[in-house]
Amino acid sequence: MSSQDRLTMPVGEAMFTQRSIRRLRPDSLPLEDIRVFLEAAVKAPNGGNAQPGRFLVVTERKQLKALGALYHEAWWAKRKEIQGWHTRADIPPTEKTYLSASRLADEIGDAPLIVLPCAKRGTPGNSVFPWVQNMMLAARALGIGSVFTTLHPQVMERVMALFALPQDVEVFGCVPMGYPRGKFGPTARKSIGELTYFNRWGQPSPWA
Amino acid sequence: MSSQDRLTMPVGEAMFTQRSIRRLRPDSLPLEDIRVFLEAAVKAPNGGNAQPGRFLVVTERKQLKALGALYHEAWWAKRKEIQGWHTRADIPPTEKTYLSASRLADEIGDAPLIVLPCAKRGTPGNSVFPWVQNMMLAARALGIGSVFTTLHPQVMERVMALFALPQDVEVFGCVPMGYPRGKFGPTARKSIGELTYFNRWGQPSPWA
Repeated sequence: MSSQDRLTMPVGEAMFTQRSIRRLRPDSLPLEDIRVFLEAAVKAPNGGNAQPGRFLVVTERKQLKALGALYHEAWWAKRKEIQGWHTRADIPPTEKTYLSASRLADEIGDAPLIVLPCAKRGTPGNSVFPWVQNMMLAARALGIGSVFTTLHPQVMERVMALFALPQDVEVFGCVPMGYPRGKFGPTARKSIGELTYFNRWGQPSPWA
Repeated sequence: MSSQDRLTMPVGEAMFTQRSIRRLRPDSLPLEDIRVFLEAAVKAPNGGNAQPGRFLVVTERKQLKALGALYHEAWWAKRKEIQGWHTRADIPPTEKTYLSASRLADEIGDAPLIVLPCAKRGTPGNSVFPWVQNMMLAARALGIGSVFTTLHPQVMERVMALFALPQDVEVFGCVPMGYPRGKFGPTARKSIGELTYFNRWGQPSPWA
C-alpha cells in the first residue's frame, strides 16, 4: 500500500492531537511505518526543491544509548546555563514540561528510534523544519509519538563523531520517536486572536 | 463546526498533493476558512510552548498591492544577485520553477491574502516553520493553495514600515494564499533511499 494511502487519519485530527510525546515505549517500530513517515516528510515544501534535508535514522541500540547519554548531558548543560538548575530537585513542581523533559533526558536512550534531521551548514530552516513537521504529523497518524528537541553545543562535537557526520553538515534537531506510554491529545495554545494581526502590526484580527 | 472537524481530508492526501501553488485566483477567502488554517497552524510544536510566532495576515487590497510591488523588486534583486538574471528573457526555458516564480512575482499583489509569519528577532526557526507548514497543509485540505517564499533584505526596511513592524520583530517568510488557477497534485522528490542514512552518516537505509 502506498504511503499516501496508509495515512488515512483526517488532517485535523492529526494536527489537533499532536501532543509532544516524551514517554515512549521501547517497542520497535515497523520498518514499513518508518518508510511511510519519511516519505510523507519529504513531501513538505523546501526552497527551490533543492531538497537539502537528510534524515539520520538511529535504530541501533548501541548508538541510541550513546546518543542518549550525550542528550542527557546536553539537556542538563542547558538547564544549568538558562535556569541555573543542577538536578531534578531544583526544578519547581509547577514546571511540568521541564519535569517531563527531564524524564525524557533520562530515558531517551531507550527510545526505539531517534531521527536527527540534518543539512549542509547554513541551510535555511525553512527547507528543513517543514519536513520534520510532516514527519511528526505522519507518525502521529500512525499512532507513533514524537517530540522535537535540540542538542546543546557542548555535546555537538561528540554527536558528530558518534555518527561520522562530516564537518559541513549541521544537526537541526533530535527527534525521539516511539509508541506513547501516555495518550495523544489536545495541546494548550493561545487563541489566534492573540497570535494574529490583520494588515498592520498590532491591528487586531476579527478573533481578538 | 470546530476547526478540527473542518479538516476532514486524510493527512496523506494533504501531504502528497501539497504542490506549491503560484497561480492564484483573486477570489477572496472565507474568513471562516482563514480561522481554520490559523488555528491548525498554532497546533504545531514550538519550543517550550512559548508560542513566539505571530501571523500578520494581509487582506487589504492596498496593502497587498504595496507588498506585491516590494516582493517583485525583492525577487528580481535576488535573481540578479544569485543568477545574474535581469529580465524574464534571461531565465532559461528549462528553469520552469523560476519561470513560474517570476509570474508569481508579477501577480502576487492580486492574491486575496498574504501571510507574513513573524517572531521576535532571533527566534529559532524550529518554533516558527512547523506552524507555517501546518497552516499550508490545513489550507490545502480546504482547497486553498499557497507557496512559501522569502523577501530579499533589500526591501525589508520598507516592508517593516508598510506594516508598522517593530524593529525587534523578524519576518520569517511571505506566503501568498488563494484558490489555485492550476491543480493540486503530486510533487517530485528524491527517493528516501537518497535522503536517509541509518545509524551513521553515509550508511545506506533499507530503501537505498
